Amino acid sequence: MILLEKKNIKLTVEYDGTNYHGFQKQAGRQLATIQELLEDRLSILTKETIQVTAAGRTDAGVHALGQVVNFMTSVNIPMSKFPLAINSLLPKDIVVKQAEIVPTEFNARFSPVSKTYRYTIYNSRIPSVFLRNYAYHVPVILDVDNMKLAARQMVGRHDFRSFCASGSSAKTFTRNLMDIEVVRQQDVITIEATADGFLYHMVRIIVGTLVEVGKGKLSPTQITDIISAKRREAAGPTAPPQGLCLLKVVY
Amino acid sequence: MILLEKKNIKLTVEYDGTNYHGFQKQAGRQLATIQELLEDRLSILTKETIQVTAAGRTDAGVHALGQVVNFMTSVNIPMSKFPLAINSLLPKDIVVKQAEIVPTEFNARFSPVSKTYRYTIYNSRIPSVFLRNYAYHVPVILDVDNMKLAARQMVGRHDFRSFCASGSSAKTFTRNLMDIEVVRQQDVITIEATADGFLYHMVRIIVGTLVEVGKGKLSPTQITDIISAKRREAAGPTAPPQGLCLLKVVY
Repeated sequence: MILLEKKNIKLTVEYDGTNYHGFQKQAGRQLATIQELLEDRLSILTKETIQVTAAGRTDAGVHALGQVVNFMTSVNIPMSKFPLAINSLLPKDIVVKQAEIVPTEFNARFSPVSKTYRYTIYNSRIPSVFLRNYAYHVPVILDVDNMKLAARQMVGRHDFRSFCASGSSAKTFTRNLMDIEVVRQQDVITIEATADGFLYHMVRIIVGTLVEVGKGKLSPTQITDIISAKRREAAGPTAPPQGLCLLKVVY
Repeated sequence: MILLEKKNIKLTVEYDGTNYHGFQKQAGRQLATIQELLEDRLSILTKETIQVTAAGRTDAGVHALGQVVNFMTSVNIPMSKFPLAINSLLPKDIVVKQAEIVPTEFNARFSPVSKTYRYTIYNSRIPSVFLRNYAYHVPVILDVDNMKLAARQMVGRHDFRSFCASGSSAKTFTRNLMDIEVVRQQDVITIEATADGFLYHMVRIIVGTLVEVGKGKLSPTQITDIISAKRREAAGPTAPPQGLCLLKVVY
């Protein structure tokens, strides 16, 4: 009997979350999840039972340009041909962009140095047909200068409990928000946030709070008070999922 | 009895053609058409039987950022409130961006001075999840400089029979292609064409021919021969519908 050595394979995955019930495998859901699709098709390709570990467990409707997953396999497919092989089995709204063999100790979930999310707001009186599944439509014109000022107050290592969905089982609420940038290009406002990790719904609550600032309902100077409050109710509402996209994960 | 004067209303419409069987009303199709949806919802809003006339009868899967339609009605809704009122009745993939009262003689179909279409190519080895319904995926790298040279040969008033789907009932095949621009931005190539009118499938056959040039299968100098041939078989294949978008109509 030949003992095949297991390899650890890292995949960079792009997906449109519109038609999925989020990333993580779940029982009794009507819509499939990205993880179910990936594991099913990887198992077909490798003829093994594949289990993937992911960098971010994105919610229903949330997208990814650079989700990272890893899995162990003993299959022998050249990494340059792997994306084409798996993409031919996947639906068109999930695409593997890159595959590489990584050291055994690499873990997509626990090894990240930073993650970057982008949130897109469509800020125009009339909604956009083409962004309906990829942006949050805010019909009142937002004050982006004030949103930039507010975003700057959030940067740094803080207890982000006010920006975490209640009921979260996080062990610690301290995260290092390394960078957050608010940019307007015509009717599109993008908010890009990089941190060593994000709490549950953290980006969407940050965006919901920044939109309140943009509407003039909160002042940029109130952000430090919201952070110190350490209560979910202190921050703004949770922005809807379709504007969110996992951009990249750095290891 | 009060005789209500009929007004001629012009609408600018944006739509995602992915889930429709094109613009024009048709009998016995499974998918609805944009025209059916528009007429149905306009009839509900006005409580009249509305029939619209459109600038361009786009095919299944083709999109619009600036389709123009007009219709007669005696309803009294301020034009500034009209888009919001009709959009609340329309599905999210059809949006009326502007409404205005125009002279009785205005006809969206017969009055245009020019129409502009944009075609989008996604030119990367790996397909894009987010452009799957909005671009033509060409995995081999195209020579955009040669495509630009070829496009320039097409500009002007020509008999475009070689670029018209066979079986067309057009009375004349002469069109004035005022401008065509090929631009690459990273992996996205856009081709924007403006003419006094377009033959059936004309933009898609122009694009299919330019892609052949980009692949090196045709040389830019062959374009004049293709035009003079006046045979559909002389030109390249018809590019797929999802890359096409009706950008604007000038009257």
